[in-house]
Amino acid sequence: MDPLPTLISDLQTPCLLVDIDKVKRNCSRMIQRYSDLGVELRPHMKTHKTIEGGELMTNGTRRKIVVSTLAEAEFYADNGFDDIIYGKPVIESQLSRCKKLHEKCSKFHLMFDNEEAIYALERNPMKNKAWTVFLELDIGGKRTGVQWDGDRVVELARLATNVQSVEFLGIYTHSSVSYSLTSDKAVKIQAENDTKKILHVCERIQQAGIPVGVVGLGDTPCCSVSDISMAKLTEVHPGNFIFYDTQQCSIGSCEFDDIAVRVAARVISHKPEINQIVLDSGFVALSHDGLYCNLPNGIAVFQDHPELKLVNMSQEHGCVSVKSGQIDCSAYPLNSMLFIYPYHSCATAANHPVYYIHSGDKVIGVWKPVKGW
Amino acid sequence: MDPLPTLISDLQTPCLLVDIDKVKRNCSRMIQRYSDLGVELRPHMKTHKTIEGGELMTNGTRRKIVVSTLAEAEFYADNGFDDIIYGKPVIESQLSRCKKLHEKCSKFHLMFDNEEAIYALERNPMKNKAWTVFLELDIGGKRTGVQWDGDRVVELARLATNVQSVEFLGIYTHSSVSYSLTSDKAVKIQAENDTKKILHVCERIQQAGIPVGVVGLGDTPCCSVSDISMAKLTEVHPGNFIFYDTQQCSIGSCEFDDIAVRVAARVISHKPEINQIVLDSGFVALSHDGLYCNLPNGIAVFQDHPELKLVNMSQEHGCVSVKSGQIDCSAYPLNSMLFIYPYHSCATAANHPVYYIHSGDKVIGVWKPVKGW
Repeated sequence: MDPLPTLISDLQTPCLLVDIDKVKRNCSRMIQRYSDLGVELRPHMKTHKTIEGGELMTNGTRRKIVVSTLAEAEFYADNGFDDIIYGKPVIESQLSRCKKLHEKCSKFHLMFDNEEAIYALERNPMKNKAWTVFLELDIGGKRTGVQWDGDRVVELARLATNVQSVEFLGIYTHSSVSYSLTSDKAVKIQAENDTKKILHVCERIQQAGIPVGVVGLGDTPCCSVSDISMAKLTEVHPGNFIFYDTQQCSIGSCEFDDIAVRVAARVISHKPEINQIVLDSGFVALSHDGLYCNLPNGIAVFQDHPELKLVNMSQEHGCVSVKSGQIDCSAYPLNSMLFIYPYHSCATAANHPVYYIHSGDKVIGVWKPVKGW
Repeated sequence: MDPLPTLISDLQTPCLLVDIDKVKRNCSRMIQRYSDLGVELRPHMKTHKTIEGGELMTNGTRRKIVVSTLAEAEFYADNGFDDIIYGKPVIESQLSRCKKLHEKCSKFHLMFDNEEAIYALERNPMKNKAWTVFLELDIGGKRTGVQWDGDRVVELARLATNVQSVEFLGIYTHSSVSYSLTSDKAVKIQAENDTKKILHVCERIQQAGIPVGVVGLGDTPCCSVSDISMAKLTEVHPGNFIFYDTQQCSIGSCEFDDIAVRVAARVISHKPEINQIVLDSGFVALSHDGLYCNLPNGIAVFQDHPELKLVNMSQEHGCVSVKSGQIDCSAYPLNSMLFIYPYHSCATAANHPVYYIHSGDKVIGVWKPVKGW
C-alpha cells in the first residue's frame, strides 16, 4: 500500500472526498438542535457506515444508533457501539445473528410491522432477556411499516406486549414524503404533520392501555428543518445529514456549503468532435441514483464549473459536456481534477471502499465503511 | 464468520448468487467460438473482478486480460495473471502505479487516445523496457477513443511509433452501439460493420508505413453473436458474457437460461393496503442501472413470478407489486425467498462484496471481487 498523499491533488481518482470540517459542523448542529428540543438523537449509520462517522454523530458516546443491515449492526457492536436498532422489519431467518448481537451489546432492538415477526420471536426466545421491539409505522412513506391509521396498529402493539419473550418499547417511522418537497417551509409543515400522525398513533396505543416508551421519527429533511412540535417526540433518527448532498439541498434540508462529500475525478479524454470530455468516474464512482431527477444540474454538480453537465455514464467513464454551445476542451486539461457533488450521498458512498478525509486541501486520513449484509 | 450454508435457501439475504455451471458454459462457449475463428480471446474482468472468474475466462492460463481499473490490474498481477491491458486512456498521474505493475508482470499494456499521453510516457520512461500501448478508437460508442475516421488516427499511431520509450502495439475499440440493438440479427450486422471500420483504420495506419500488430474489438453483444468477418481481427475483449443479464438477453447476446447471476432477496413486509410487498433488497443490492429501460419486466425479472414488478427502491428496501390487479400477499410469505435476474450484471455485481457460488441448490463457495480504483 502506498502512503497516503498529503494533498487532495495527489490522490488517485476517482475517489470519495469527505470534508471533515463540514462533517463536524453538520453533526454538531444536529446534536445541538435536538439537545435544545429535549429529544434524543439516534443517528442512522447507513449513509457512511464507518466507526469514525458514528463517533461524530453520537457525540463520542457510541450509544443510540440505527443501522440498515445486520452487517452494520455487527460492525458497530464489534467496535464498542451499543443501543443499536436494526431499522428494517426483522424476519425469522435473521434471528440467529440477532441472538449473537445480543451477546455483543447490552441493547439491540428490532423493528416489526406484522404478527409473524412476533410469533417468530416467541418461537425463538432468548435465555436471559426479552427481545426488545419497536413497531414500525407507515405514515405515508409507502415502504415498510404498518399503516398508521389502520386497526392493526393497536393489535400489533398489544400482541408484542402480550408475548412473554418480547418487550414492546415504542413506535418508529421514517417518512420519505419529505423527499418530494422543495422548500424548507414545506418540510417544516411536513415535519409538523408527521409528528401529529405519530403522536396520534401513540395516543391510540396508550388509550388501549399499552405503554409507549419511545416515539421516534426519522428522515434528514424533517430532522434538519424540524418543527417545534417535534419536542413531543422522544427520539429522532436522521442519517444523511452527516454528508448531505445536492438532493438534500434542493429539498431545503441544508445549504449547498453544507455538502461534505465530493467525488474527485480526472479528465482522461478530449472529444471535441462530439462536444464532450470524458472523466475517469463512471456509475461505480458516482452511482445512477437520481439520473432522471429534475434538478437543473442533473445528478452531478461540478464545483466551480456551472457550465458542465454529465451527459452519459458507463461503468468507469463519465461523459461530460457544456450546457450550451461547444465545449472548450483546453479549459479542462487532460489529467486535471474535477470535483463532483453527488445527488444522493448514501448511494455514492455505498460504492466506495474507502473515503478520503480532508481538511481544506490536506488529506488527513481514510475511513473504511462496512459493506454487504 | 459463520460457516457457509450448504443450501441457497439458508443464505442470508440480500446476496448475489452465481450459477457456476452457467458461468462455465458461458466461458467455454466464448473460448470455443474464438478458438474456432482463430482469434485470441482477451476477456475483460470488469464484470466480476475475481480471480476465479478470471481463471475460467482465460481457460486457466491467467494470460491476456483487460481490466477497467488499476486496482484490478494490481489485484490480478498480484495473483499471477499476466499480459494485462488497462482499458481506459492512461493519464500521467497513474504512471507511478503503472511502473510498479510492470515490475509485477511481464506484459502490462496501456491505452491512449491523445498526444498528451504519449508525451507523458516520454517524460516518464521505464528503465529497461518500453511502454506498450494500444490506440483506442471511437467507432461510434461516443466514449473515449480517437474518432476512427479522422486524421488524428494516423498521427497518433505515428507519434507512438516514433517516441523511443513507447512501443505501438495496435488498435482497440469498444463499440457500445450494440447495446441499443434488440435482435441477434441486428447485432451480427453491427459486428460486421464494426469490424469493417476497425480494419479500415488498420489499413490506413499500415499504409502510412506503421505496423499494426493487434486489431482488437470488444463488447459482449458483438462478441457473443459474432460475424465471420471477425476472423480478420487478432483479438476480442468481451467481459459481461461470464454472467450475462436481462439486458444482454434483450439485445440478443444470450438466451435467458444463460444468465448466471441472480439476487436472492426475502419478503420482509406485506402491504396489501398499498398493493405491495417489500423485499430486503434495495438499490445497494440491485443497482439503479436500467431503471428507465423499456424492458417489459423493468430492471428486475422475478424467477417463477412473471406477475411481479419492482415499483420502487430505496437503499435497503425493494417495493414490489403485481403487473395488474391486487397482490395476494399470501403467495409471497414473509421470510420467503425471491430470486431476481438483474438488468445489468456489471452494475449489480459492483455492489456486492462477495458472490455466493452455487451448483443447483447447493452453495459451493464464495468469490471475493476487488473493489475501488
